[in-house]
Amino acid sequence: MTPSSFGDRLAAAVAERESQIVLGIDPHPERLWPLPAGATEDVQRRLSATLAAAREAAAALIADTAPGASGATRPEQEVRAATPAPEAPADLAAAATLAHCVALIDAAGPACVAVKPQIACFERLGAGGWLVLEAVAAHARAHGLLVIADGKRGDVPVTATAYAQALLTEVASPFGTVSGLRADALTVNPLLGRDALEPLVTAARATGAGLFLLVRTSNPGAGDVMDLPLQDGRPLWERLAALARELGDGAGDGLADVGAVTGATAPEHLARMRDLMPRTPFLLPGVGAQGGDVAALGPAFAPGPAGGLVTASRSIAEAHLSGGGQPGEAARAEAERLRAVAWGLARG
Amino acid sequence: MTPSSFGDRLAAAVAERESQIVLGIDPHPERLWPLPAGATEDVQRRLSATLAAAREAAAALIADTAPGASGATRPEQEVRAATPAPEAPADLAAAATLAHCVALIDAAGPACVAVKPQIACFERLGAGGWLVLEAVAAHARAHGLLVIADGKRGDVPVTATAYAQALLTEVASPFGTVSGLRADALTVNPLLGRDALEPLVTAARATGAGLFLLVRTSNPGAGDVMDLPLQDGRPLWERLAALARELGDGAGDGLADVGAVTGATAPEHLARMRDLMPRTPFLLPGVGAQGGDVAALGPAFAPGPAGGLVTASRSIAEAHLSGGGQPGEAARAEAERLRAVAWGLARG
Repeated sequence: MTPSSFGDRLAAAVAERESQIVLGIDPHPERLWPLPAGATEDVQRRLSATLAAAREAAAALIADTAPGASGATRPEQEVRAATPAPEAPADLAAAATLAHCVALIDAAGPACVAVKPQIACFERLGAGGWLVLEAVAAHARAHGLLVIADGKRGDVPVTATAYAQALLTEVASPFGTVSGLRADALTVNPLLGRDALEPLVTAARATGAGLFLLVRTSNPGAGDVMDLPLQDGRPLWERLAALARELGDGAGDGLADVGAVTGATAPEHLARMRDLMPRTPFLLPGVGAQGGDVAALGPAFAPGPAGGLVTASRSIAEAHLSGGGQPGEAARAEAERLRAVAWGLARG
Repeated sequence: MTPSSFGDRLAAAVAERESQIVLGIDPHPERLWPLPAGATEDVQRRLSATLAAAREAAAALIADTAPGASGATRPEQEVRAATPAPEAPADLAAAATLAHCVALIDAAGPACVAVKPQIACFERLGAGGWLVLEAVAAHARAHGLLVIADGKRGDVPVTATAYAQALLTEVASPFGTVSGLRADALTVNPLLGRDALEPLVTAARATGAGLFLLVRTSNPGAGDVMDLPLQDGRPLWERLAALARELGDGAGDGLADVGAVTGATAPEHLARMRDLMPRTPFLLPGVGAQGGDVAALGPAFAPGPAGGLVTASRSIAEAHLSGGGQPGEAARAEAERLRAVAWGLARG
């Protein structure tokens, strides 16, 4: 049984929630919301202790594995490196990050259609960070939010298959099926060409998930490569747009299941992008903290309200720093404000 | 105190070990070496049980976090999703993967100068996979091997900083400094332009680590984007080569600390690449299972024996499948064979 396509699922979710806002989740351990008083300290220590025990088990497993053909004795240094601290900063930070992300989703989630966890921010907390990423994705899903894993992955086909298994689907093992993150969509980097994207398209399509290809990003240096003119005088990003459109053509008549990351800091490109990709959902980063303006996004919504997803991260999570108030209340107000502006634009 | 540059460290390691071979570590849970009989089963269960306990702690932390402004009651579904299985396939597979990687490093490591763990293969095992990645990196380092994290990361500057912290350095937190993977080098994707690479260059240089920029990869579709001719008629990859050279210029007179991934399946490009990047270390994937031929790599070694690193993954780890014998013995023999061929070329 083929599941609904990502394009259809996205359109339905946007219509139901009357929102195109994507809550970017980019937690920095020094900019977390204050933890709820008292209540979480015990489980924070428990999470830290269990992760320390897992590291200890890994070290024991290394020690138990018979030396290979090298016959080398196991160096002292290695045992020390693998010996866990009882309360490692990484694990305490991971626990605090989880509490922050849950509070952020509870506060701003109702005004949003999706969350977009930035995988880098979880990876920098190590194994505990990945565990927290999984818990955050489950929490968002339980609240009816789509999960867009922001990983910008891209690699040769065999590795692209592994990333698809890690982030979108699952992988078989002798111990049973290993479930991946099962995100609803993943951001991907197209530099390696079409065959490097196809395993991701196939895996996504088979499970009703989607991709967002980098076409033109929102950072100041984005033009260094993506704006380079090709021989016909058109910039490279137009070729990437064509690739996104072609890869999304297999998904039926509605909104495509291969989207495009189209930086909101270059709004003059949006009309041209819409010409090149008529049915492609656009993921529009750069609103808020990165300097984009949500009112300039009109062309994104040409194929319908779900044609443009408006991402905001720091402008929501750090709304209390500029506007005052409780973090949760300020986040919710800012998310609601963005929701109303974008929804008004999409309604035309 | 500035540490030695990555270029100098790499040259010294290649000279000392008389090897340019990089052991690619791309474990698939269905193609692991047989586990050592009996010995590891207990710790395998222990690793699995501790990871399950960590997930339980994360679920408890979510339940303890006070609901935010939404006041939503916590759905049943979420509690079920976060409830850990006692022996999750992911965690058992992670433990078996660790045993495999340790045995592979013990067998083939002595013939190599570095290991190159493919991060996708660990991410698909979830939190336990990341824990195993950290343990594999520590094990390789303890055996005198450099660690090249193969992640092909690339994102806007704030996120590039997070990836640098995750994979090369560390991040500050209220709980103390959170150490990242501390790899010796990282593969990176240059599509997002120079400002997206600079945080990675800065972090790498400050710690004596290096980067390898994708310039021209080895997959069949690599030409779709990287070979596109620009207005001067030269392919895009030559522009990426110029970017790699410029970014590596800050590291002194020896071998640069910003390298290039230069697919070995397109050896006709290598001489031109060496002209464009005279002091850049080349990471040459595609040898062995991907079809490359190590004898065609001569130009890579023009700046010295460390100018070309020859990567092999499946051709080493699965040498016993074609040539017979014990996995460890076959892997060691194949790694030694590659070492001798490459070393002869570099001397030649």
